[in-house]
Amino acid sequence: MASSLERLVRMLSGGFSNQEQAFENPPLYAHILVKFRPLPQLAPGSLLLEQSYAINPAAPYRIRVLRVEALNGQLTIVNQALAEDQRFWGAVEDSELRGRIQTSDLLPLDGCAYVVREESEGFVGEVEPGCRCLVERKGATSYLVSRLELNPAGMRTIDRGHDPITHEHLWGSLAGAFEFARTDDYNDEIPAHWSEQWGD
Amino acid sequence: MASSLERLVRMLSGGFSNQEQAFENPPLYAHILVKFRPLPQLAPGSLLLEQSYAINPAAPYRIRVLRVEALNGQLTIVNQALAEDQRFWGAVEDSELRGRIQTSDLLPLDGCAYVVREESEGFVGEVEPGCRCLVERKGATSYLVSRLELNPAGMRTIDRGHDPITHEHLWGSLAGAFEFARTDDYNDEIPAHWSEQWGD
Repeated sequence: MASSLERLVRMLSGGFSNQEQAFENPPLYAHILVKFRPLPQLAPGSLLLEQSYAINPAAPYRIRVLRVEALNGQLTIVNQALAEDQRFWGAVEDSELRGRIQTSDLLPLDGCAYVVREESEGFVGEVEPGCRCLVERKGATSYLVSRLELNPAGMRTIDRGHDPITHEHLWGSLAGAFEFARTDDYNDEIPAHWSEQWGD
Repeated sequence: MASSLERLVRMLSGGFSNQEQAFENPPLYAHILVKFRPLPQLAPGSLLLEQSYAINPAAPYRIRVLRVEALNGQLTIVNQALAEDQRFWGAVEDSELRGRIQTSDLLPLDGCAYVVREESEGFVGEVEPGCRCLVERKGATSYLVSRLELNPAGMRTIDRGHDPITHEHLWGSLAGAFEFARTDDYNDEIPAHWSEQWGD
């Protein structure tokens, strides 16, 4: 049986769309696409993440390299930015470009790891405690409170920004979580040597 | 000088897009298009309204016929649905289809008129008092609280749903108003006989 770590990497390695939610609730939810795709040239568990408006997948609004790990038995998704990330926009659909991402391109995002636990058939992850994952929006600094729920059928996410001093809720959807269905599966791109290192 | 009524019709008769807002605040705002276009065959002040996700303008999520009036000196935007409205989807970009809309196709939306006042260079409209503009969303009935701010450069809108009994805020964006820039001008489609009836 696969380890929790490997199950989490497998469940993440796919494409997700909230099209149904967007079309059932106009205009409250943007239609967005989220893809996580293995980067076999990097450390085991490394996944390219692109998030984009469905209308413009060539210009993702967020591009990250995640690294799924089990640190002292605690499932963790380490969150990293890319230096000059525009070089890699669209790499999630371009294997040649994806293959050019190197460890030296990665920038740590302190305080922004997700702490993950298994829950029923899936996983729930939340930004690590400490209110240290700072983001800029509309000229103000806020800290990110983010939750990710993953199951075999899809994913739910919710992001909110809070004021670092007053903890006031500054931005984020009151309408609720984004709800994604799974549209693509990239499991066959997970290299065999990752499983070997994970000791299955 | 044009009457307030005519100024309001002229300021509405255009196309609007919140592209800048959507792209500056991903993924909190869907990119939406709103167009108001004169219907010269109907009563003076009649405008076809279509609202759509930018990704799919052929399938508007809302299509209405508005009628701008001055009732006892009070600027009012009467709100009407269309019977079997799918017949008219895309009419805002199709003059032949638009020309087929007849008075007999219109369905009143009781309690959903906007009461409008002039404010600096533009107008502010809010749904008439009474909590009677009922909408169904996610299987629940709510009443609409909606505000429209119009100025020469663009438009801001905010829609919220409240429970008819408890007045609890059920849906709507905490992130704030949709902010639209003007992208199209349909002033030259306002027929001369409307101005004549308005007595300018």
